[in-house]
Amino acid sequence: MSGETQKERTDATKSTSDKNNENTRADTVIKVKRTIPRKRQDLLKWYGWGYNDSRFSLDQEHARFVGNRYALAGQPLPHLKEWAYENFRLDVNKPPKIPEPPTSFPESRLPGNVKQELEKIAPLSVEGMDRLIRAHGQTLKDISCLRTNSFPRIPDAVIWPESHGQVEQIVQCASRLRFVIIPFGGGTSVSGAITCPENEPRPILVLDTSEMCDILWLDKEQLLARVQAGIVGQDLEREMRARGFTVGHEPDSFEFSTLGGWVATRASGMKKNTYGNIEDLVVQTKTVTPRGVIEKSCRVPRISCGPEWEHVILGSEGCFGVVTEVTLKIRPIPAVTRYGSLVFPDWESGFHFEWEVARQRLQPSSIRLMDNEQFRFGQALKTETSWGGVILDGLKRIYITRIKGFDPTKLCVVTLLMEGTEEQVTEREKKLNSIAAQYGGVPAGAENGERGYTLTFVIAYIRDVGMEYDVVAESFETSVPWDRTLALCRNVKRCIREECEKRKIEHFLVSCRLTQTYDAGCCIYFYFAHNTEQCSDPVATYEEIEEAARNEIIASGGSISHHHGVGKLRKKWYTDTVSEPGRLLLLAAKKALDPDNIFAVGNMVLGDDNEDHEEMSIKSKL
Amino acid sequence: MSGETQKERTDATKSTSDKNNENTRADTVIKVKRTIPRKRQDLLKWYGWGYNDSRFSLDQEHARFVGNRYALAGQPLPHLKEWAYENFRLDVNKPPKIPEPPTSFPESRLPGNVKQELEKIAPLSVEGMDRLIRAHGQTLKDISCLRTNSFPRIPDAVIWPESHGQVEQIVQCASRLRFVIIPFGGGTSVSGAITCPENEPRPILVLDTSEMCDILWLDKEQLLARVQAGIVGQDLEREMRARGFTVGHEPDSFEFSTLGGWVATRASGMKKNTYGNIEDLVVQTKTVTPRGVIEKSCRVPRISCGPEWEHVILGSEGCFGVVTEVTLKIRPIPAVTRYGSLVFPDWESGFHFEWEVARQRLQPSSIRLMDNEQFRFGQALKTETSWGGVILDGLKRIYITRIKGFDPTKLCVVTLLMEGTEEQVTEREKKLNSIAAQYGGVPAGAENGERGYTLTFVIAYIRDVGMEYDVVAESFETSVPWDRTLALCRNVKRCIREECEKRKIEHFLVSCRLTQTYDAGCCIYFYFAHNTEQCSDPVATYEEIEEAARNEIIASGGSISHHHGVGKLRKKWYTDTVSEPGRLLLLAAKKALDPDNIFAVGNMVLGDDNEDHEEMSIKSKL
Repeated sequence: MSGETQKERTDATKSTSDKNNENTRADTVIKVKRTIPRKRQDLLKWYGWGYNDSRFSLDQEHARFVGNRYALAGQPLPHLKEWAYENFRLDVNKPPKIPEPPTSFPESRLPGNVKQELEKIAPLSVEGMDRLIRAHGQTLKDISCLRTNSFPRIPDAVIWPESHGQVEQIVQCASRLRFVIIPFGGGTSVSGAITCPENEPRPILVLDTSEMCDILWLDKEQLLARVQAGIVGQDLEREMRARGFTVGHEPDSFEFSTLGGWVATRASGMKKNTYGNIEDLVVQTKTVTPRGVIEKSCRVPRISCGPEWEHVILGSEGCFGVVTEVTLKIRPIPAVTRYGSLVFPDWESGFHFEWEVARQRLQPSSIRLMDNEQFRFGQALKTETSWGGVILDGLKRIYITRIKGFDPTKLCVVTLLMEGTEEQVTEREKKLNSIAAQYGGVPAGAENGERGYTLTFVIAYIRDVGMEYDVVAESFETSVPWDRTLALCRNVKRCIREECEKRKIEHFLVSCRLTQTYDAGCCIYFYFAHNTEQCSDPVATYEEIEEAARNEIIASGGSISHHHGVGKLRKKWYTDTVSEPGRLLLLAAKKALDPDNIFAVGNMVLGDDNEDHEEMSIKSKL
Repeated sequence: MSGETQKERTDATKSTSDKNNENTRADTVIKVKRTIPRKRQDLLKWYGWGYNDSRFSLDQEHARFVGNRYALAGQPLPHLKEWAYENFRLDVNKPPKIPEPPTSFPESRLPGNVKQELEKIAPLSVEGMDRLIRAHGQTLKDISCLRTNSFPRIPDAVIWPESHGQVEQIVQCASRLRFVIIPFGGGTSVSGAITCPENEPRPILVLDTSEMCDILWLDKEQLLARVQAGIVGQDLEREMRARGFTVGHEPDSFEFSTLGGWVATRASGMKKNTYGNIEDLVVQTKTVTPRGVIEKSCRVPRISCGPEWEHVILGSEGCFGVVTEVTLKIRPIPAVTRYGSLVFPDWESGFHFEWEVARQRLQPSSIRLMDNEQFRFGQALKTETSWGGVILDGLKRIYITRIKGFDPTKLCVVTLLMEGTEEQVTEREKKLNSIAAQYGGVPAGAENGERGYTLTFVIAYIRDVGMEYDVVAESFETSVPWDRTLALCRNVKRCIREECEKRKIEHFLVSCRLTQTYDAGCCIYFYFAHNTEQCSDPVATYEEIEEAARNEIIASGGSISHHHGVGKLRKKWYTDTVSEPGRLLLLAAKKALDPDNIFAVGNMVLGDDNEDHEEMSIKSKL
């Protein structure tokens, strides 16, 4: 072990009585230089997704992705406009609707005495823009309200604690001075989870966790790290990689979402087959609730101590308290990372390949199946500078469409991300190719595979450019047993088509992707976009259609959500999913941890009218 | 797919509205012929562990294991008496104390009208022996009370429902007629979890789940089975194997413990590296609580729907309701099962081997490290008929102790159980041998490995023979981070030695085994036995020493329990482990699901005096 290693790892010999101290011992702390500043708006787009300097632009001869942050950036995208016209009749001759930053904001309702008290604990802001950009996540409705500055309620102040202790002080202050706290991590939720409760009479304080971003210790021997919960994915991964490790948790929001947010939503990353979902990665969590700090007393790998309360914090969606610190598993960076892709004649054969791989438990770090619509969208994002690539692709296309007889309007693509030793990766690839052959699949090269993964982060920007031209777009996901998957995908696509027809929406796209596989089923992501010129209220129309699609998902055996959570968007299906005793447990947990409803963000069925009613009926039976 | 397969699997095309019906559709049900009859005492020892016809016997020329159920059975064990004398001064010339079955029992307090109502639902018994043998698990105290017929309280009746519906009726009946229900599975708990609350004024009904033992459906395509929760491990596994599958969950109590018990205690099996612990195996659970049935509405592999309430049922220890049905993962029987063993010069080198294997995530289905005391105990269980084996062993011993210079009073053994294809198993074995070599380990053959695993079930019988000769024995386990493990084992052994010295106990044995490995730590099993001739109250003495050992475990960074649970034995450490908000969550969950305390078994901190007190303080703060 190197000297640095010795210094950074926990001293294995010290007794457990040091536990509380070990997390703050200065000599183990890695101060992290964070990417996202306190003034988020200096770096990040205030009215949409991602960085200010990065966006799709269609008002030039060739479409392009502006900026220099992503592989795709700066190069002409000669096929994109045509694709957008074909699918949405998107008219690039219209001036793009790019909103002006708002200049007026609702006044802060934070009383002066509260402000004074809070300022003694940590930096505070009541500036309008600071509050506005923390009033939302990334649902279509959020972005629409942002662009029109029409949130019914925004927070009254923002505070930036930098430690667990400061969070405790703020929560105590809230109990005493009666204000509401909404924890804010990366602001990437797509469930309405941080939307301010409209009728809340108390002042609302956003607790921005982003200054709690240090690595408190790193234990290279035990492959563990204790990390403050406000760290964003890219910062965490950068610091780990610089030391030879990886956490391996890569949700699509990875650049901006936080560790605490992952815990609060029960997040899933695209490499979960190797690294696990967040519940598998977490060894210990520390959460400040109004009734005290909830944390297991020991850092053990597994325990049988009655119900596992950590699983109540995982998925708590900001309603019970603030996650401040997490002990996470880390892994050595794999020697080899190799991409791959496979082409299948159609969705069904690709699906049966995925299922067989899961049955044999041969999943590489990531394995995803895109339907034909997504394959074609991927083609539309090809760059001019990749003409060489296109020619090669052309040859491959001949092979795929002529020799193998694949129909280009039906074929589907599986992208692979394999990690391990050279030997393991080679062996795995061989086995996957062999299974693929049984289902009519053919290898289509590492480049296509890599492209699929690197596009993930850029695709998140596409909605903003759509909105500039009256196209709305959104994704939603579900988990589903294997035997229901094909029917579910078919049913949901049909449902959306019918809903569009009912509303005379002619130009729309619905597409899906199988992104995660498990023993007992998989995760399906749907993408839906439509031209809104026929809609008097585009967001409402979209929401109606998504609601119909979700009903169809549930009826087809799918879940309310695989990894996005419930928030406010999916409240309607909560009780049916968890059953009535599950709902009672939610209310009981809320009452036990937050009896004064300090964390009044109102997700799941908390804060609903029927909650109080049912509380009454509980009481009357006691 | 064969015709049988088609018949047995769920019809994938039917809609979710059939969900409730699908579990009882007669054409999918596999009726299981169960091993353990309603009159358990006809087959199982009423005063100790296991089958009536199977026990260690020392009152013959050669010790032997009586019966014909186990590999070891019927053969002379020529070294065992010597071992028992050396370690415990066990005097085989004394007559063994085998208790007579009791003839008098506390009268049943079940009122006639309640008895009548219950008999309409399912078979019921108020016979003394039926009630006595369901008053206990398998702690030392339980067995001691049994042998002396001195339980302060036993159940007033036993009922055997055979379906979820009947359980619902019984629970409704309990709410109406005010009696207490204690769910009883296999009676193998070692936590006092089913001990009747002594001061409970209401009648106590044991709900014996053993007639709920059918497989409701088996889905060979999706590798899932829906099983009634009263099935015992051996019946479940036998039925699965007959159809080409395995569940792979093998706790040491596997012959007698039930699926529902596994869920209620958060059980772990010895092959968890391949099959997972119970929380990994379970896809869906169905539990009857006094406030209704708790069950997720969809059979999905993973979900983000707020807190995961299934993790409150896992570990509920009978306090919230009765688990009636479980959907479990199954796997095809592996092509190859191979045992292996490795000998290391000492505990530390064996330990570092285990840790390195975990670090590289190369664990086979099972990998266990025995300390030198256990190695020697294993040697003491060698049979005469294995003289051939002993000679071979002798050669190996020369190799190990002479050529390699291993000290026979220090060496330790790792046993391996590898499963997979021939190629996978061979590859794995090669890698494990190569890592072992780095830590000074040498392969010691498949036979020693297999012997270690098959002895597991026989060793459970050793305590009973000990009690016949005034030796008490018990095991207890913990989970611990890797970096604390060596110190914890050292500290606990020293603690026990000191506690024995304090009490002038000269003849005792303390030993440990590393039974499970994880990314972040492992599970350690301790075995402790002592001669009780110096003790006025042997059970109390044992309990005092175990308590001291548990305090030492906690102080050394270990957990309250890796897989046995809290029950009543480990109440003392509950709140410190889960923190005060965790305790509040427990009380809140109890109140939400069982406000009238029907399931009044009082595990964890439920039913404690301080519970009501704290409930008061909760209320006063609301």
